[in-house]
Amino acid sequence: MQRYFGKEKKENNMILEPGDMHHIKKVMRMKDGDEIEVVIDGKLFLCNLKNNLETIVIKKELEIPKDFMKYITLVIPVLKEQKMDLILQKATELGVTEIIPVSMKRSMVKIGEKEGKKLERWNKIMKEASEQSMRNCIPKLQSVTTFSEITKLDGLKIICSTREKENTFKKFLQTSTNYDKLIIVIGPEGGLDIEEENFLQEHKFVPVTLGPRIMRVETVPIYVLSILNYEYME
Amino acid sequence: MQRYFGKEKKENNMILEPGDMHHIKKVMRMKDGDEIEVVIDGKLFLCNLKNNLETIVIKKELEIPKDFMKYITLVIPVLKEQKMDLILQKATELGVTEIIPVSMKRSMVKIGEKEGKKLERWNKIMKEASEQSMRNCIPKLQSVTTFSEITKLDGLKIICSTREKENTFKKFLQTSTNYDKLIIVIGPEGGLDIEEENFLQEHKFVPVTLGPRIMRVETVPIYVLSILNYEYME
Repeated sequence: MQRYFGKEKKENNMILEPGDMHHIKKVMRMKDGDEIEVVIDGKLFLCNLKNNLETIVIKKELEIPKDFMKYITLVIPVLKEQKMDLILQKATELGVTEIIPVSMKRSMVKIGEKEGKKLERWNKIMKEASEQSMRNCIPKLQSVTTFSEITKLDGLKIICSTREKENTFKKFLQTSTNYDKLIIVIGPEGGLDIEEENFLQEHKFVPVTLGPRIMRVETVPIYVLSILNYEYME
Repeated sequence: MQRYFGKEKKENNMILEPGDMHHIKKVMRMKDGDEIEVVIDGKLFLCNLKNNLETIVIKKELEIPKDFMKYITLVIPVLKEQKMDLILQKATELGVTEIIPVSMKRSMVKIGEKEGKKLERWNKIMKEASEQSMRNCIPKLQSVTTFSEITKLDGLKIICSTREKENTFKKFLQTSTNYDKLIIVIGPEGGLDIEEENFLQEHKFVPVTLGPRIMRVETVPIYVLSILNYEYME
């Protein structure tokens, strides 16, 4: 069944974004009587299309299964469009809770005035990936920020480091318990600048190694989230 | 240091493919005296550029660190260009040994006469990804084949199944020992056709579930290989 995130709930009817209505009509070519799922305010509803697809009637509320994933915040560099899009789509698919882009020294992409447009585009990618992978919420996307702001976050904090050789991600996960929030910093191509890494370490971020493989920057978040799914799954 | 796969070793000189020479001259803009690494016949050499970049002189042989990854064969459907390219690139980065494309019932892409050209293109992607991720060999890419041929392979055989609910990938890995080769079948969008899955099960392929997340087809091989790296890493 196709899932959408609702814009508004009006009594027994659901209102969707124009883009989703277009998707229903032109991409999915649905007909009156077809059913869709709509998530709004953390609740999931089974709905029915009626009235030449103009009305979306709520049939009943459905139970939302609890996600086994912890609260995962990914801190990533601002990257070129294609890499950024891939990370946002795949991280959403794999259950990330929050994504925070940071201007890092070695990241070549400057965002400047285009930030508003970029955020809009990135949010759209995450909304579509959430619908496609049947998530019950869209991950939060924060505005581009600095490492100083990141140090204020609470949780278990790690850096995917290219300098660390001993403390593997596996050792780290197997020896860390009793945490609900995990904050994971991923550096740009070539890794974090050493001053940035030192600064984070001074603020209780723990460097871990993902092993000897040389991965492209966009592979790292997918790798990390795959492992978290694997470890947290019953 | 930049790594290339050599075409031929002539006494103390190395010959590269024209595409790699172009990369050295026009993309990397190297100069005489610059060093590169060249892999040929499973051996790794440190080389020196000379004579207006026309000659590649072998300086010495380097030790190749042993890969911790087991022999991993991925069996995948033939997919649309973008998804296929992503799988080939990422699977190579993450240490796959062999990739076998199979014509599956539910895969929408028919390959037909274009196979030769496609294989050439796919091999090129895997060569470049191997160089970029400093691998010591390029994974083998087989021609498009059938499930009947796949059943002849030896090794521990699994199906990433959308039907299986109990036997998780984690349980499977934790209870399977004493194997050197792992053959992993990944289905197309919507999963394998039931007849195909039954056929494979009759030939000792074990269905496993990757959990409740709904992943796009191109995410699955990255997910699986990430976990294998994580599990096999010391």
